[in-house]
Amino acid sequence: MAYSADTVVIIGLGLIGGSLARALRHSGFSKRFVGFGHREPSLRRGVELGVIDDFTLDLEEAIGQADILVVCTPTLVATQMLRDILPRLGPDGPVVTDVASVKGCLRDAAIDSLGAMPPRLVLAHPIAGSERSGVEASNAGLFVNHRVILTPVEGNDPEAVRLVRDMWDSTGAEVLDMAVDEHDAVLAATSHLPHVLAYALVDALAQSPASEDIFRFAAGGFRDFTRIASSDPAMWRDIAIANRSALLESIDLFSEHLGRLRRAVVEGDGEQLFATFSRAKCARDEFAALLAERGLRKS
Amino acid sequence: MAYSADTVVIIGLGLIGGSLARALRHSGFSKRFVGFGHREPSLRRGVELGVIDDFTLDLEEAIGQADILVVCTPTLVATQMLRDILPRLGPDGPVVTDVASVKGCLRDAAIDSLGAMPPRLVLAHPIAGSERSGVEASNAGLFVNHRVILTPVEGNDPEAVRLVRDMWDSTGAEVLDMAVDEHDAVLAATSHLPHVLAYALVDALAQSPASEDIFRFAAGGFRDFTRIASSDPAMWRDIAIANRSALLESIDLFSEHLGRLRRAVVEGDGEQLFATFSRAKCARDEFAALLAERGLRKS
Repeated sequence: MAYSADTVVIIGLGLIGGSLARALRHSGFSKRFVGFGHREPSLRRGVELGVIDDFTLDLEEAIGQADILVVCTPTLVATQMLRDILPRLGPDGPVVTDVASVKGCLRDAAIDSLGAMPPRLVLAHPIAGSERSGVEASNAGLFVNHRVILTPVEGNDPEAVRLVRDMWDSTGAEVLDMAVDEHDAVLAATSHLPHVLAYALVDALAQSPASEDIFRFAAGGFRDFTRIASSDPAMWRDIAIANRSALLESIDLFSEHLGRLRRAVVEGDGEQLFATFSRAKCARDEFAALLAERGLRKS
Repeated sequence: MAYSADTVVIIGLGLIGGSLARALRHSGFSKRFVGFGHREPSLRRGVELGVIDDFTLDLEEAIGQADILVVCTPTLVATQMLRDILPRLGPDGPVVTDVASVKGCLRDAAIDSLGAMPPRLVLAHPIAGSERSGVEASNAGLFVNHRVILTPVEGNDPEAVRLVRDMWDSTGAEVLDMAVDEHDAVLAATSHLPHVLAYALVDALAQSPASEDIFRFAAGGFRDFTRIASSDPAMWRDIAIANRSALLESIDLFSEHLGRLRRAVVEGDGEQLFATFSRAKCARDEFAALLAERGLRKS
């Protein structure tokens, strides 16, 4: 069956949820946007800003109004939201999707809660963000040229998958499919691990006795390297816990490579240091060229 | 005694040496710029670009012409250059300075070569750079609003120190003093360690079987985090070896903190993850504010 996209209910109206509503209004993909959440002031602010048309604090009411229901809360809250929402869905209920950075934990919560993946639950992850958060920071162009990964599973209704794909297409994003576990492994390596490394570095230096001098003399390279340590701690706590096993594998892979470099430094092994640094530079330069092709800002 | 600043000899005409010559010509601090090195084509290119007025491939001749002699080679070459230069300096020889990222190894090379720090050797480190390298990338504004750390030692001629300070002042840099060992420890923490981490991460991911997907799906945060892995491998090999003991201390401090975060992930300890991420975000936000005050681009 084909689904309507008229009314989108956003659960958790922050940067991502707000930007999605703005983008869908801008593209005309949907007509009406309703917020649901526990924080009335930010929902009220969403109406003032024209991001949503209305809001409700009642979950049944939110589900009842939705053609598409998008869970935009932090990852662990999203897991709980699915446990609350899925049993309440009637046979004509909305298509449900999400934006969380980890997919396995949501799949598991759904299966745990219903015994199987419901056909109209389509998990998705827009790879876009900002250190800024909240509906105030939302903007209609956030997803343009960014990737959105859908992780459809066997048993998904193809029309529901198509609706979610069309929705993200209309925001200007490039939509791709991936298996749930592959998604979580790739994101652990490229996003979750770097965040943990940046947090670990800044915290280590901040706690060192020379921290004042350290931050006084740090420069541009350090600024770029640590930018992601300015991200939302609650969001990243959730991700670290939700993607535990893939993250631990990434941490261990990284630690092994750091250990090799450490030994090369101990041994003054210039050849190995040069070989490793050169390989890394080469890979990083290729990656920067790839990003530039895709039209993302500066390398 | 007061020294002349008329002729500056640049040993190793790359990004830093070329930018220093351009800046000193622009400010009028010096009148004549001579390059010395082993690679004639890049010296010839320096003359074509108007960065230097002349060049020589003969070290005695270079020393003979210099009022100020600036060693701008990679760190380990600089160590060897000092061993070559210092014994050749007559009683009226030039003031000698450098731009290397590690100071202890140069101090040790000088003491090892002459038995004591020569009064007119003033070690310095401009904290500025770019992933781009070579005289083609040089520009007169490279040091504006950037810090230059002088590491004068007991026995330095105060007039020689003043000359080097005035030279860097004239480039628009902010000049500060630090002890040699403190410099090496602070730079290990804020610059050398982050480079090693970025190289280790990119190399680990590039060698993983999923590397194609990994780089395909990496986004802006990863780009910023890994930018320094595009830096010159030879320069960073030298730094890692030259600053071995401070770098190892930094790696170990970092690994200890990463290990703590790893344990928190294993144990699903959300409180500790949140506390660490929050402390780090707070320190990083303060650092960004500090940089913004100093007029460096974007946080």
